[in-house]
Amino acid sequence: MLKHLIDTQDFTKEEILNMIDLGLAIKKSIKHGYYPPLLKNKNLGMIFEQSSTRTRVSFETAMAQLGGHAQYLAPGQIQLGGHETMEDTAKVLSRLVDIIMARVDRHETVANLARCASVPVINGMSDYNHPTQEIGDATTMVEHLPCGKRIEDCKIVFVGDATQVCASTMMMTTKLGMDFVQFGPREKQLSETMLAIGKRNCAESGGSVSVTEDEDTALSGADFVYTDVWYGLYDKELSREERLAIFMPKYQVTAQMMAKAEPHAKFLHCLPATRGEEVTDEVLDAHYSIAFDEAENRLTAMRAILVYLLRDKISESERSAAVKAEVCHALSKVL
Amino acid sequence: MLKHLIDTQDFTKEEILNMIDLGLAIKKSIKHGYYPPLLKNKNLGMIFEQSSTRTRVSFETAMAQLGGHAQYLAPGQIQLGGHETMEDTAKVLSRLVDIIMARVDRHETVANLARCASVPVINGMSDYNHPTQEIGDATTMVEHLPCGKRIEDCKIVFVGDATQVCASTMMMTTKLGMDFVQFGPREKQLSETMLAIGKRNCAESGGSVSVTEDEDTALSGADFVYTDVWYGLYDKELSREERLAIFMPKYQVTAQMMAKAEPHAKFLHCLPATRGEEVTDEVLDAHYSIAFDEAENRLTAMRAILVYLLRDKISESERSAAVKAEVCHALSKVL
Amino acid sequence: MLKHLIDTQDFTKEEILNMIDLGLAIKKSIKHGYYPPLLKNKNLGMIFEQSSTRTRVSFETAMAQLGGHAQYLAPGQIQLGGHETMEDTAKVLSRLVDIIMARVDRHETVANLARCASVPVINGMSDYNHPTQEIGDATTMVEHLPCGKRIEDCKIVFVGDATQVCASTMMMTTKLGMDFVQFGPREKQLSETMLAIGKRNCAESGGSVSVTEDEDTALSGADFVYTDVWYGLYDKELSREERLAIFMPKYQVTAQMMAKAEPHAKFLHCLPATRGEEVTDEVLDAHYSIAFDEAENRLTAMRAILVYLLRDKISESERSAAVKAEVCHALSKVL
Repeated sequence: MLKHLIDTQDFTKEEILNMIDLGLAIKKSIKHGYYPPLLKNKNLGMIFEQSSTRTRVSFETAMAQLGGHAQYLAPGQIQLGGHETMEDTAKVLSRLVDIIMARVDRHETVANLARCASVPVINGMSDYNHPTQEIGDATTMVEHLPCGKRIEDCKIVFVGDATQVCASTMMMTTKLGMDFVQFGPREKQLSETMLAIGKRNCAESGGSVSVTEDEDTALSGADFVYTDVWYGLYDKELSREERLAIFMPKYQVTAQMMAKAEPHAKFLHCLPATRGEEVTDEVLDAHYSIAFDEAENRLTAMRAILVYLLRDKISESERSAAVKAEVCHALSKVL
Repeated sequence: MLKHLIDTQDFTKEEILNMIDLGLAIKKSIKHGYYPPLLKNKNLGMIFEQSSTRTRVSFETAMAQLGGHAQYLAPGQIQLGGHETMEDTAKVLSRLVDIIMARVDRHETVANLARCASVPVINGMSDYNHPTQEIGDATTMVEHLPCGKRIEDCKIVFVGDATQVCASTMMMTTKLGMDFVQFGPREKQLSETMLAIGKRNCAESGGSVSVTEDEDTALSGADFVYTDVWYGLYDKELSREERLAIFMPKYQVTAQMMAKAEPHAKFLHCLPATRGEEVTDEVLDAHYSIAFDEAENRLTAMRAILVYLLRDKISESERSAAVKAEVCHALSKVL
Repeated sequence: MLKHLIDTQDFTKEEILNMIDLGLAIKKSIKHGYYPPLLKNKNLGMIFEQSSTRTRVSFETAMAQLGGHAQYLAPGQIQLGGHETMEDTAKVLSRLVDIIMARVDRHETVANLARCASVPVINGMSDYNHPTQEIGDATTMVEHLPCGKRIEDCKIVFVGDATQVCASTMMMTTKLGMDFVQFGPREKQLSETMLAIGKRNCAESGGSVSVTEDEDTALSGADFVYTDVWYGLYDKELSREERLAIFMPKYQVTAQMMAKAEPHAKFLHCLPATRGEEVTDEVLDAHYSIAFDEAENRLTAMRAILVYLLRDKISESERSAAVKAEVCHALSKVL
C-alpha cells in the first residue's frame, strides 16, 4: 500500500520504533563496511523550494550508499503549482522516479503533492513540521538513553521558540510516551491546536505535554535539552535585535541551565546553530552535547525512511543481500 | 562509428523502429525487476541552456537505472561558445564524459557541438526540433496501436501551433509512413520548408503530409490527436490575450473535437499542458488520453537512445548480463 | 592518518610520483574496459564558491567511474563561514560524506575547512594555488617525456602572468627536480615569497627556478612550454585593453616562440584558452600541443587523488577487485 511521510502523526509508535531500529541496523552495517544495496536502481526526485544543506546531503548520501540515486531539483528548477497543475506535475514525476522528497514553503504544497502522486512522497520540512528531523532526533535519543531508562521514561525540554522543529519534537516525543515541556516566552509557545495534538498522543502513549515560562519547572528531571535558532523561518523572520529582546538572556541554553537538568542530561540542536544566541559555545561543544551525532542521524533516518517507504519494491536478491548482513532482523519487522 | 542524435532525419525508418523495440524491451525488463546494466560506469554530461523537468529527470533516471551517471550542468554553469570556443569546450568534454546531451536556445549550437565532439551528442530540444520527444511519442503510439493496424496504417492530427514539437511529430510520423495533418490557423501552420521535408519522407515511406484549417477534414479517420501549448517558446512567446485571440475556441481539443476522430482515437500531449487553453480537463483526463504514458515514455526513449548511441562501448560482460534478460533480442538488432 | 590535499608542498616527491603512477594505472585499466570499484559507496561533497566546468566534471566522472558518487553544491547553496561557523559546517559535513572538495575565493577558506574537518579535504583551486591541476599536469609530462629523458632532466618554461596556475606549476616542477623558468614582464613575475618556496624545493630535488624577461634565455632547451590566460581571476581581473598592453605581442606563445625551444618540445595550457591572446590557433592545434591530453588528465589526477586520500577506507573486497586489474602494483605502493 502506498504510504507517504508527511506527518509522523500518520504512523503508530510501533511503526516509528521499527523505522528507528531499521536505521540503526543499517548504520551499524555500514560502520562495519557493508552497504546493503536495498535501494539498488531506485531514483529519488528531490524538490527544494528553499535551499538546504543537511537535508539535501543526507538524502543524496543515503540513496548513493544503498545503491540508488538522488536527483537534486534546485529552487526554481521545478515549479509546484505554477503553469502546470500540481496534479499533473505529481503524475508525471511519479512515472519518472520511484520516490519524491519536497522541502516546501507551505505545508499544503507537500500534502497536495502526496495526494496526487502515485509514488511515496517525503516531507523534507515545511512551515508546519519536519518529520525526517523527528525520526533522526528520536534515533539519537534512543542511542543516548540514560542508563537503565527506556525512551518512554524520559523527559525532554525544548528551550526557546515554537518553531516547526519545536512542534515536531513535541509530536514525536509525546507519540513515544515521553514527557515534553517547552520552556519559552508566552508569545512564543506552542499553540493550543498543537498542544491538543500532543494531548491526544499522550492519552494513548502515557506521556505528558506542557509549556512554561518557569525555568526550574522546565529543567527539573530533564534527560534531554533541545533548542533551535530564534530567528524563525519563512515569512516571520525576526531581526537580531527583536529576537534578542524576546529571548535573551533567559532562554539561552548555558552551562548553568544545563546544571538544572539531570546530571546525565544530553544537549540536542537541529543545527545550524547561532553560537552566542540560543546556545553558548560551552554547551554546544560540551561532552554532553550530542548535536553532531544528531546531525549524523539525519542520514541514519533518511536511509530508514527511504527503505521503509520503498519496502514493497525491494527485490528478492537485494533482500537476501541484506539478510547476509545485520540488517536482516530489523528489515524483517517492516517487510 | 560515431553517431549523434541531432535530427531523426539522419536515421532510417528501420533504425528508428529498432530503437523503439529496444526501448520497449528495456521497459519490460525493468517492469519485471531486472535493470540491465548496459551503461555501467558511463557518464552523461547534460548541458541546459534553459531549465527543464521532464527531459532532465528522464535522462538522469535512465542513466542511473542502467548503471551509469548523469551530470546536470545547469543554465549558466557552462557556456557554449562564450569565452572558450565551442570547439574547445566540445573537445574537453569529450575527454571527460562518454556522451553529451544539450538543450539549447538555437539549433545551430547543438549541431556545432556534435560537429566538434568526439563522443555522441544528443539534442535535448532546440528551437527547431525535439528528437527525443519524437522517439518517445512514436514508442507510445506503437504501444497503443488500434486493433489490427500497423503504425504505417495510422493517421495523426496535430492541433494548434506549429511549434518545434509539431514539426518533430510531422518529421517522425511521415518517416514512419503515417498520414500526418496539422490542423491550425494559416499563419501558424508548418512552413513550406518543413512540409518539403515531410514530402520527401512520404515519397519513401508511403505516408502523407498536409495542413488545413478545416476541422472535419483534419479529424476524419484520425487514430491519434496531438496538441501542444500555444504560447510558443524562445523569442516568439505570445501573451495570453494574443494566443487566445488566435486559437480559441476553434483549436482547443475538446470532447466534441475528439468525437470527430475514430472511436478508438487516442489523445497525446507532450506536456506541460495549460488546461483550459489548448485542451480541456475532460480530454486530458479521459480514458483515451495517453499523455501520461507518453511522459513515461520519455524515459523509455532516453534509455533506448543512450544505449543505441553507446552500443559500441558496451562491454562483453554487460552485454551478456542483458542477454540473460529480455533485452537480448532487441539489442541484437542494433549491435 | 587523516591527510588532505591543500598544497602539494605537504607531500614528498615520492608520494607525488606514487599518485601519478596510480592515476596512470587506473587510466590504463579503464581504457581496457575495467573500472576498478575502489570508491564503491563513497560520497564526495563538492563545494564551489565559483562555478567551474573542468574541475567539477572531472571529479564527478571520477567518483562515478570508481563506484562512488559526487554531490554538487553550487555557489550559494552552502555557505562556508556565514551564519554557521566554518567549524560547525566542517563537522557536520564530515558526518554526512566521506571526502570534501572545495573551490574557494580565498585560500584561507579551504585551509580552515581542512583544519576543522574529520574527513579528507581537497583544494579544487584557490587564489593561491591549484594542486589538482598540478598533479594532472605532472602526469601529462610523465606521459610525454622526451625520448631518453627522466622528468628531473626536463626544463619547463611558463610564459605570461604569475597566476595561481603559474605558481602551482613552479611548486610542482621544482619539487620534481625540473628546471623551471617563468618568462613574463617584471610586474607580473612570481613574488619573492613564491620563489623562496621553489628554491627550498630545488635545494632538495636538484632542480632550478628563475624568472626572466628574456625570451631566448627562457626558451633555450625547454622541453615543455606552458601558458595560461592573462586576465587574472578573483579581484584582480584586467580589462582586455590592459592585458594586451602588458603582454602583447611579446608573451603570446606563437610557432616562432615554440621554434626556440627543443625540437621535441610540447605545449601545455590549463584551459580554457583565449585563442589569439596568450596563444595562437596554430600552436594550440599543433601536433606538439598536449593541452587536450592535459585536460583529460584532470580526470586521471582526480581518480588518483581520491583513491590516495581514501586509501585507508578501501575495503578488502574492493582492493582484491583492483588487484585482478592492472591497478594492483600502483595501489600496493600507496596502501
